[in-house]
Amino acid sequence: MTERTDLIREEWPEGLAEQLVAWRRHLHRHPELSFREENTSRFVEETLRGFGGGFEIDRPTPTSVVARLIGAKPGRTLALRADMDALPIQEETGLEFASGTPGVMHACGHDGHTAMLLAAARLLAARRDKLHGEIRFLFQHAEELPPGGAVELVEAGVMDGVDWVFGEHLAAQLPVGQIGIAYGDMAASPDNFTIVIKGYGGHAGFPHRAVDTIAVGAQIVANAQHIVSRYTNPLDRLVVSVTQFTAGASHNVIPDTAVLKGTVRSFGEQVRADAREQLLRIVQGITAAHGAEFEFDYVLGYAPVVNDEELTRLIEEAAVELVGRDDVVRTPPGMSGEDFSAYQQKAPGTFVNIGAGNAGKGIVYPHHHPKFAIDEDALATGVRLFVRAAEKLLEWDS
Amino acid sequence: MTERTDLIREEWPEGLAEQLVAWRRHLHRHPELSFREENTSRFVEETLRGFGGGFEIDRPTPTSVVARLIGAKPGRTLALRADMDALPIQEETGLEFASGTPGVMHACGHDGHTAMLLAAARLLAARRDKLHGEIRFLFQHAEELPPGGAVELVEAGVMDGVDWVFGEHLAAQLPVGQIGIAYGDMAASPDNFTIVIKGYGGHAGFPHRAVDTIAVGAQIVANAQHIVSRYTNPLDRLVVSVTQFTAGASHNVIPDTAVLKGTVRSFGEQVRADAREQLLRIVQGITAAHGAEFEFDYVLGYAPVVNDEELTRLIEEAAVELVGRDDVVRTPPGMSGEDFSAYQQKAPGTFVNIGAGNAGKGIVYPHHHPKFAIDEDALATGVRLFVRAAEKLLEWDS
Amino acid sequence: MTERTDLIREEWPEGLAEQLVAWRRHLHRHPELSFREENTSRFVEETLRGFGGGFEIDRPTPTSVVARLIGAKPGRTLALRADMDALPIQEETGLEFASGTPGVMHACGHDGHTAMLLAAARLLAARRDKLHGEIRFLFQHAEELPPGGAVELVEAGVMDGVDWVFGEHLAAQLPVGQIGIAYGDMAASPDNFTIVIKGYGGHAGFPHRAVDTIAVGAQIVANAQHIVSRYTNPLDRLVVSVTQFTAGASHNVIPDTAVLKGTVRSFGEQVRADAREQLLRIVQGITAAHGAEFEFDYVLGYAPVVNDEELTRLIEEAAVELVGRDDVVRTPPGMSGEDFSAYQQKAPGTFVNIGAGNAGKGIVYPHHHPKFAIDEDALATGVRLFVRAAEKLLEWDS
Amino acid sequence: MTERTDLIREEWPEGLAEQLVAWRRHLHRHPELSFREENTSRFVEETLRGFGGGFEIDRPTPTSVVARLIGAKPGRTLALRADMDALPIQEETGLEFASGTPGVMHACGHDGHTAMLLAAARLLAARRDKLHGEIRFLFQHAEELPPGGAVELVEAGVMDGVDWVFGEHLAAQLPVGQIGIAYGDMAASPDNFTIVIKGYGGHAGFPHRAVDTIAVGAQIVANAQHIVSRYTNPLDRLVVSVTQFTAGASHNVIPDTAVLKGTVRSFGEQVRADAREQLLRIVQGITAAHGAEFEFDYVLGYAPVVNDEELTRLIEEAAVELVGRDDVVRTPPGMSGEDFSAYQQKAPGTFVNIGAGNAGKGIVYPHHHPKFAIDEDALATGVRLFVRAAEKLLEWDS
Repeated sequence: MTERTDLIREEWPEGLAEQLVAWRRHLHRHPELSFREENTSRFVEETLRGFGGGFEIDRPTPTSVVARLIGAKPGRTLALRADMDALPIQEETGLEFASGTPGVMHACGHDGHTAMLLAAARLLAARRDKLHGEIRFLFQHAEELPPGGAVELVEAGVMDGVDWVFGEHLAAQLPVGQIGIAYGDMAASPDNFTIVIKGYGGHAGFPHRAVDTIAVGAQIVANAQHIVSRYTNPLDRLVVSVTQFTAGASHNVIPDTAVLKGTVRSFGEQVRADAREQLLRIVQGITAAHGAEFEFDYVLGYAPVVNDEELTRLIEEAAVELVGRDDVVRTPPGMSGEDFSAYQQKAPGTFVNIGAGNAGKGIVYPHHHPKFAIDEDALATGVRLFVRAAEKLLEWDS
Repeated sequence: MTERTDLIREEWPEGLAEQLVAWRRHLHRHPELSFREENTSRFVEETLRGFGGGFEIDRPTPTSVVARLIGAKPGRTLALRADMDALPIQEETGLEFASGTPGVMHACGHDGHTAMLLAAARLLAARRDKLHGEIRFLFQHAEELPPGGAVELVEAGVMDGVDWVFGEHLAAQLPVGQIGIAYGDMAASPDNFTIVIKGYGGHAGFPHRAVDTIAVGAQIVANAQHIVSRYTNPLDRLVVSVTQFTAGASHNVIPDTAVLKGTVRSFGEQVRADAREQLLRIVQGITAAHGAEFEFDYVLGYAPVVNDEELTRLIEEAAVELVGRDDVVRTPPGMSGEDFSAYQQKAPGTFVNIGAGNAGKGIVYPHHHPKFAIDEDALATGVRLFVRAAEKLLEWDS
Repeated sequence: MTERTDLIREEWPEGLAEQLVAWRRHLHRHPELSFREENTSRFVEETLRGFGGGFEIDRPTPTSVVARLIGAKPGRTLALRADMDALPIQEETGLEFASGTPGVMHACGHDGHTAMLLAAARLLAARRDKLHGEIRFLFQHAEELPPGGAVELVEAGVMDGVDWVFGEHLAAQLPVGQIGIAYGDMAASPDNFTIVIKGYGGHAGFPHRAVDTIAVGAQIVANAQHIVSRYTNPLDRLVVSVTQFTAGASHNVIPDTAVLKGTVRSFGEQVRADAREQLLRIVQGITAAHGAEFEFDYVLGYAPVVNDEELTRLIEEAAVELVGRDDVVRTPPGMSGEDFSAYQQKAPGTFVNIGAGNAGKGIVYPHHHPKFAIDEDALATGVRLFVRAAEKLLEWDS
Repeated sequence: MTERTDLIREEWPEGLAEQLVAWRRHLHRHPELSFREENTSRFVEETLRGFGGGFEIDRPTPTSVVARLIGAKPGRTLALRADMDALPIQEETGLEFASGTPGVMHACGHDGHTAMLLAAARLLAARRDKLHGEIRFLFQHAEELPPGGAVELVEAGVMDGVDWVFGEHLAAQLPVGQIGIAYGDMAASPDNFTIVIKGYGGHAGFPHRAVDTIAVGAQIVANAQHIVSRYTNPLDRLVVSVTQFTAGASHNVIPDTAVLKGTVRSFGEQVRADAREQLLRIVQGITAAHGAEFEFDYVLGYAPVVNDEELTRLIEEAAVELVGRDDVVRTPPGMSGEDFSAYQQKAPGTFVNIGAGNAGKGIVYPHHHPKFAIDEDALATGVRLFVRAAEKLLEWDS
C-alpha cells in the first residue's frame, strides 16, 4: 500500500464543494421510498455520466446504480457504498430545501451519502490512469426496508472480485468534524419473533378446566430473561426483548391464545443462532410444562455489521490523517440494523460514522426524527475519507 | 317449630299446577333486562292482587315487588326470594313460548323462579289465618347486573325484621327431581381488578433505558400465583385469574404501559379481603422491585353466598321430606356470583338448587346458553319447598 | 336399622368407668414405638380374653390384635378401629402416670383409643346373643410410621367381609364434650418428593459455560405454584410445598446440582395423581427449557381419609343423640395423614374426632407435643360413640 | 515523547538473561502467601541494592518494596508494578525448582512478574543519568487476598505524583511471543453478596400460616435475572450469579430462613453501583411482595481494571515494536478480579497480558491449577515491554 497523501490534500476542482451541497439538497428535496428510487437512481447515473467517461455503469436492479472505475493497470478492487432511500416520515425541519414529497423524508442522511459518493467518484475518476485495480461505487437502494437492497446487489454479483468494501454513515449523534470508528461489532442483527401460545379458554372461576395462556406467557417472559443473563457470554452483546403481550379481552374469561412479539438483537452469527435456539427451547419447555402448545415464528433481520480488524485499522489511520487523532473516536455498536452487513459476507468490510451533529446550530435531532438534520460541513469529510481510503488501500502510480 | 306436614302433602287447588306453568311461559315469552322489569313487575303485582287479598304489596323500587303476608298472630318473619330479570342473549331454543323480544332471553331460569314464588304465595295466603308471624315475598329485579337489585331492596328496608331468608335457583346441571344443598359456601364473590403498570417506553434494543412493563407484568402474573398456592388455607376456596394482558403493538418498541385485568373469586369476607390485600401487595412489591409504577383498581362484586348452617339443616330436612334422602344431594359451591348474598348480610339465609335438567329430554344446556331450558316438572318441586320451608320455620295454628 | 337406644343409655357395669381410665393410664405409662407394640398388644389380647369369652381373637401381625364378636344370627359386619403405637418423644407432662420409657411417649392419644375400644368391646360383648352379624375390633399397630400398620392388616385380610369401618381419634384441638364430624375429606394423603436438578457447574463469572441449577430450580419452584393456583379445582384441597432447596457452597461457583424436597398433600386419588403428574411435567418442561437434567423421586404416603357420606350421616346422628346437636361440629380436614384410609379402600368408612381438649385444665398442647394431654372425660364419650354406632348400624334382637 | 528505541534493542548486560530466569526459579521454589512475603520482599530489596545504587528504596508495608529511580532532570513519573504473592495450592508440576513449601505455590506467575520487574529495574537504572523524571518500581504484596496489597500501597502514598502506572501479567492462555492488549475493560470487579430471607416457618401442609422463604427466594432468583437482561446496557459487561441457595432440611417443614449467596462481576463503577442497587431493590420489592424480611450483605471486591485509552495506545505501539503487529492481540476482559485497579484510581493505568503458554511444551494449565506453568521465554518479553514503555512515556537525553 502506498503512503502518498497528495491526492486528498490537494485542492478540489473548482465548484466541486458547491456541487456536493447542491446534489445533497436536490436529493433531499426529492426523497423516494425504499425500492422506489427511480428518480434518485436516474440522477446518480446521469451525474456519473456527466463526469466524462471512465465509469462502466450498470443498473443491477431497477433503482440502483453500480459504477466501476477500472484502473490502467491490474490490481485489487475496493467497493465504496452509499445508500439512497428515504423514509415514510413527514418532514418538519422547515429547511428551504425540505422534502417536496408529502410524507417522505430523507431523515437518515442517505441524501448526503449519495452526494458524498458522487463527489468521491469524480475525484477518483480524475486519477484513473494512475490506478492499479478497480474502485466500484455502489449506489444502493432500499437500506431501510428488509430484506433490503444490499442483498439484491450481492445476488446480482456486485461483490464479485471485490477485496474490500467500505461504507460511511452520517451520524447526528457525533459532532461534525469527528469520525467514529468501531472495531468488530458495529450494528446488531435485528431479528423479530412472534410466539403464539395456544391453550384452552374457559371461565375465570374454573382455571383447572382451562390451559391459562396468560400464566404460561408470563413464565415464558420470565424464563426468557435467562437467555441474556445466564446463557450468553457477558462479553457478547445480546438483547432479547418481548415487546408485545396480547391476550384476553375481559375480566372473567381465561383466553385460549396469547401472542408474544419481540426482537433479538445480536452481533455475530453464533450468538444470534444460539439466542434463537434458546428462545425456542424455552418456549417448548415452558409450554410443555403447562400443557400448552405454541407456534414460533422467527424472522431473520439483517446480518450484524462486524468490522474487519485489519481494514478498520487502515481506515482509522486514514481518518487520523484527515481529522487528527483527537477527532477519531471509538463509536459504540448500535443495536439497530444496517444491511451493509450483506457486503461483509463477501469481503472484509468496514463501516464508519461521519460526525454530522452540531448542537450550536440546533442540529440535535436523532435519526428518523421529523426534524433530523445534518451539518453539511460533514459532507466534505465523508468525501475525503472515501478518497483517502481508496488511496491507502489500492496501488497508484506516482 | 311445628312438625305438621299436611299443608304440603294435601292436594293443590284446582288449576294451580297449570297456572304455574302458564305464568312461567308468559314470563319466558316476555323477558326484560335488568332494571327494566316494568312489565314483569306489573304482572307479578297484578297476579298477587288477583289472589284475593291478604298481601300488603309494596314497590320498593320501580321494577320490584314485595308482598307481605302477615299472620293472624305475631311470630317470626321469613323472607322468600325470587329474581325476575332476563339476559341480553338471543334465544335459540325454538320453543313455542320462546322469547318474543329480540336479543333478550330468560336464559337463567328467573322466569321459573318468579312463577314458583307466585304459586307459593297463593298456597300460603290460603292459610294466613293460621300463620304466626309473617312471610315476605321478595320479587327482586336485576340479579344479573352488578351492583344488583338485592342491595337496593335491602337499602329500601325489605329485610327489616326478617329472621330468615330463603331462596331457590333452578339448576340445569342438576337432574330434575333432585334438590342441591350446600352447607356454607354456595356462590363466590366475583370481584374484578384492573392493574395498569406504568413504566418507561423505549427502543427494544436498549432495555436499560426503558422500564419494561411486559417483563414487570409477567412477574406480577407469576408472583400472583402465590396468593392461592401459598397464602390461602387449602381448605378455603379462592381463584385469582389474570384474564387479560395487553401491552405493546410492535416488534421493536418496549411499551410504556401494560394492562392486566382479572378476577378474584372467593368465599367469606376474610379470604376475599386478604386476597385483595395480597394482590395489591404483590403489585406494589414487584413494581417497586423493577422501578415501575402502577394503578390498582379493584371492584367488589356481590358478596359470597354463604349458607347458614342451622337454617340449611332445616331446609335440608324439608327437602328430604319432599323428595327423599336419595334425591337431596350436596351441591358444590359455584365460582360465579349471586346477589342473594345481600340478604344474608341481614339475616341467616340459605340458597338451594332445584334440579331442572333432563338429559332424556335434551335439557342439557348450561345457564346463559342460547339453548338453555328447564324441565318444567321442577317448578312444582320449587313451590313445595318454599311452602314446606315456611311450614317448618314458622308457627301455625293446627 | 333399629332405633333403640337403650343400650347406650343404660348404666355401665360396675367398675367399667374406672377400668377405662386405668387401662389408658397403664398404656400411657408403657408406650411402645410403631411396629414394636409387643407389650401393648399382649395387654390388649389378655384384657379381651378376660372379658370372658365371646371373641375370636387373632394376631394378624406380631403386634396387632383383631377380635371378632360374632352375633347369634347372621347379619352385616362392622369394623371398629383403634391404633396403639406411641411416638419417639420425651414426655414433659409431669403426670404421675407419665411414660416410664425414656424418649417414647403416647403423644397422640393412641393409649386412649385402645382403652376406649376395649371398653366398647366389653359392653358390646355383653349383648352378643342379640347381635345379628359381626363386630370386628381392630387393635392396630404402627399408625405413626409409614407404610403403617393398617395396610398390613388389610393385606392380612382383616377387612374381608366388612360392610363398614369406623374409627375415632381423640382431638386436643376440640373441647371435651364435642364430637367433630367431617363429610368427605378428613385427612390428606401426605406424599413426599425429591427432585435433583443436574446441570453443569462452573465459574460464577462465566454463566454461559454452566447450566445454572439454582436458576433452574428457582423456576421450578415458581412454576410449581401453578399446580395449586391454576391446575386444581378451587373446590379441591391441595398443597404443594417445596420445603428444601439445597445448592452450592460458595460465592463464586455455579453448582452442578440442586436438590429440591417437598410434599404434596391432597384428598382424593385423582387430585393426588394429577398433582404428581403435573409436578413431574413441570420439572420435565423447565429442565428441558434450560438444558438441565433431573431425577424425580415421588414417595406415596397414606391414602387420604375420605369419609363415606351415608355412613357419616348415620354416625353424625349417633353423635347428636349422645351429646346433642350443639356439640356435634363440623371438623375441618387435616393436611396431615392417617392410615385409617387403608380400611376405607375396602369398605365405606368414617373417622371422627372426639373432643379431648380443656383449656380450663391447661390441656391445650397440640398432638406430638411433649406436653400433649387429654381430658379423660373424653374416653367415655368415645366408648359410647363406638357402641351407639354399632347399635345403629347392625341389627339387634330387642 | 521520544522515538528512540536504541535502549531496548541493544544487547543486554552479560548474564542478565540467566539472572532473570534464576530469580524467577528462586522465587518459585520459595513461595509465600499473601501478606506473608517476608523472604520475597527481602530478596527483592537485596537484589535491587545489589544493582549498585541509583534507587531510593522504601518498605511502605512489611512485605512490599518500592524503589524510586529518579532521573538527572525533572520530568514525569511512571510507576511499574509487579505482584509477589503465591497461592495456597499444593504444586504438582514436578519441576526441579518446584515449591519447597508444602501447600504453597506460585500458581499465577507472580514469581515471573517479580523477576521481570527486577531485570527492568536493572536495565533502566543503568541509564538513570539520561532520564527526565522518575520511574517507580512497585513490588506489591498480597494481590490474591482481598482487600489486597495495592490499596495498602496507595494509602501509603506510593502513587503520589505518578503520571502513569503500567503492569504486566504472564498469561498461560496466550501463546508465548504474543502480547495481549485490552482497551477499556480488562478485569471485572468481583463483588460478593449474601441475602438472608427471613419468613416464618411452619407445617408444609399449612402454607398460609407460614411465610415461605423458598418460594420467596425462588422469585428473587427469577427476578434478579432482569438486572442483566433488562437493566444493563447490552454494551456493558455484567454478571449476576446466585451460587448458593440453602433453605430447609426436611420434606414437611417450611423453613423460616433461606440464604442466597452469589457474586456480581462488572466493569466500571456505575454499572457496579447500579447492579448492587438493583439487586437490593429486587430483594426489597420481592420480600415486600410476599411479606418476608431480609438481610442484605454486599462486600465490594477489587475495583475493575479499566485501561486508559491513550496510555493503552502507546503501550500497544511499544508492543508492536517489540513483537510485531501480528503478535499483538486484543485480549478479552476477564471476569475475575485484579487489584491493579487500585492504582488506576490514582493515575491513568494499563495492564497487559504477556503470553506465556506453549502447547508444544505442555504448558497448557490454567492459572491457579496445581500444574500451572509458564514458558520462561516470556520473561524477556515482559522485561523489554517494561523498558520500552518507560522509554516511550518518559523523556530521555539522547
